[in-house]
Amino acid sequence: MTDQLVSGGPATEIARIRDEIDDALKTFLFAKNRMLADTQLSPLIRQLCEFVDAGGKRLRPTLCCLGWRAAGGDGQRDEVLRAAASLELFHMFALIHDDIMDSSEIRRGQPTLHRSLAAPCQGGCDSAAIERFGINSAILLGDLAFAWSDELFHASGFRSGQLRAVRPVIDSMRTELMLGQYLDLFAHCNQVSDVSVTLTTTRYKTAKYTVERPLHVGASLAGATKDVLDACTQFALPIGEAFQLRDDLLGVFGDPAITGKSRLDDLRDGKSTTLLALARQSAGADDLATLQRLIGNPALDEDGAMIVRRILTDTGAVATLETMISERRCQALAQLDDAPFEPAATASLRHLAHAATARTS
Amino acid sequence: MTDQLVSGGPATEIARIRDEIDDALKTFLFAKNRMLADTQLSPLIRQLCEFVDAGGKRLRPTLCCLGWRAAGGDGQRDEVLRAAASLELFHMFALIHDDIMDSSEIRRGQPTLHRSLAAPCQGGCDSAAIERFGINSAILLGDLAFAWSDELFHASGFRSGQLRAVRPVIDSMRTELMLGQYLDLFAHCNQVSDVSVTLTTTRYKTAKYTVERPLHVGASLAGATKDVLDACTQFALPIGEAFQLRDDLLGVFGDPAITGKSRLDDLRDGKSTTLLALARQSAGADDLATLQRLIGNPALDEDGAMIVRRILTDTGAVATLETMISERRCQALAQLDDAPFEPAATASLRHLAHAATARTS
Repeated sequence: MTDQLVSGGPATEIARIRDEIDDALKTFLFAKNRMLADTQLSPLIRQLCEFVDAGGKRLRPTLCCLGWRAAGGDGQRDEVLRAAASLELFHMFALIHDDIMDSSEIRRGQPTLHRSLAAPCQGGCDSAAIERFGINSAILLGDLAFAWSDELFHASGFRSGQLRAVRPVIDSMRTELMLGQYLDLFAHCNQVSDVSVTLTTTRYKTAKYTVERPLHVGASLAGATKDVLDACTQFALPIGEAFQLRDDLLGVFGDPAITGKSRLDDLRDGKSTTLLALARQSAGADDLATLQRLIGNPALDEDGAMIVRRILTDTGAVATLETMISERRCQALAQLDDAPFEPAATASLRHLAHAATARTS
Repeated sequence: MTDQLVSGGPATEIARIRDEIDDALKTFLFAKNRMLADTQLSPLIRQLCEFVDAGGKRLRPTLCCLGWRAAGGDGQRDEVLRAAASLELFHMFALIHDDIMDSSEIRRGQPTLHRSLAAPCQGGCDSAAIERFGINSAILLGDLAFAWSDELFHASGFRSGQLRAVRPVIDSMRTELMLGQYLDLFAHCNQVSDVSVTLTTTRYKTAKYTVERPLHVGASLAGATKDVLDACTQFALPIGEAFQLRDDLLGVFGDPAITGKSRLDDLRDGKSTTLLALARQSAGADDLATLQRLIGNPALDEDGAMIVRRILTDTGAVATLETMISERRCQALAQLDDAPFEPAATASLRHLAHAATARTS
């Protein structure tokens, strides 16, 4: 997304928001680190700080700030940034647990936390015990990030009435994420390959959790009317689906140097995506058997992945997905034309919609 | 604890609080179940409901109610019960994740949630994939219980000012639990067998998380003065340690029909307890070698456990632990004599202090 971020007004604004969110996040974590320096949590907190440093798009907190602006929020900049940063901390919780559940090895170009926490111990543990210590520590670190996201949100400095207005949104966001994650787990274990199921999962995990609710959090803090909240939803759902469909493509076809993620992990783990569901729907018997053999095989190598990519392309799944992304982006942008948002926020949302559905990042 | 609960005024009062907490908990979960009946979360929610039905002492929510009463809280009974029930939901989160981390098989006489969620799937998964599905579902269900505990707390009906007064307590409680859990993990992996380390873990995991903070939550909701909060702490820390030391003994010597827990799991898992640390401290070379061989051995059977129990007794570790429990109980009860609490609450706390450090439950 970097190349788009220097191209104009909204890009500069979004980059600035991102930096300010990082500052808010680091200020909070550094204070925690100081406060708990003498406890054994200290190494865990350093891992969280390094996780922040490893990058990430900060999409959710950015959308929270834009929701606030869209609904006419003015002033209280530090408060908004802290509330927005709390969404990033919540997302760190979600990623840490997600990586455990997916057994992912790499995140943002670094070992995932359950891997980096799997340090040798002094008791002469075997490798299974070390691996288990890493996973258990990461379960706890995720729990801590969840707890601290809630703490940061409540310490954002907003008045009680403003915080109270956002409670239903926060509650919904959390439950929707868990539902999306469970749908994903269930589809994965049951090898569900149905486009309607993968799109429902995408709706919860990304469209609602990543886009709609962050916009709603910011907008509700600003005292948004129902019209504004509805317009957030109408923009969020199609663009959120487009984000996820692009992400699914990048998980298989992306350049790891740009995405920071392996492009074998999704295939090795047999991740249930719309891309794969489309391919399975159109594949002949031979291709279907090949997919069955290669997808979900932890030993899949780049040669095997090339074969899968060929099938995904030849069955037309890639082209269909590109069309779906375009359609959803157009629909979202059209909604923005009529949205009762502050114009500067609309321009930034338009920019984000393009940047996060573009082909490379 | 059941036999003590019918013996007098405080016992009846505590039993009544317990029932009312269960009602508040079930009302919340049933509403969630209705709201999410059409989603795939439905089976997960039923598991939570069954977990509530399987029993448990409800120690934390009971202490929350007693903290409220101790600090002179009056009226707002439904609000207090909902806030208290939210602590039980939080504890369900903690237990679900703890059982995953400890690979426990049995909790409250039932299979642990990661075991009961490990249901066969339709995709012809192998047993490792089924087990992983159970663990991953339980990670998510724990996360959901955490999210819902926060939702229930904020929906308890208290005024914003009351909720705000409790925030620092809630924040501390959560961080202290994570710290205690991490100390436990770390000691376990590094085979730490030092009484000062096991007692620090006990302080965070039980004395503060289980006793002090629940009392503080209730007392703070009632607008407690610093004197009252300090008196809660002075009672809570010794009695909380006594609870945990009793629990450590019951984990090895208890009757599973009464405790609802295996008395092999702690030994098989090599749980780092003060009991074991004391035994290792006093054991001769032969006994030490035997402990080394048996503790942490997943294949340990009842015969092996008998040998361990013999060493724990012969080294004097059991007797020392009984003395430590008595001393701490006496110290806590002495603190109650001078505590600026409402007398009825003092009587109930006195009763709880006896019941939860008694020998069988």
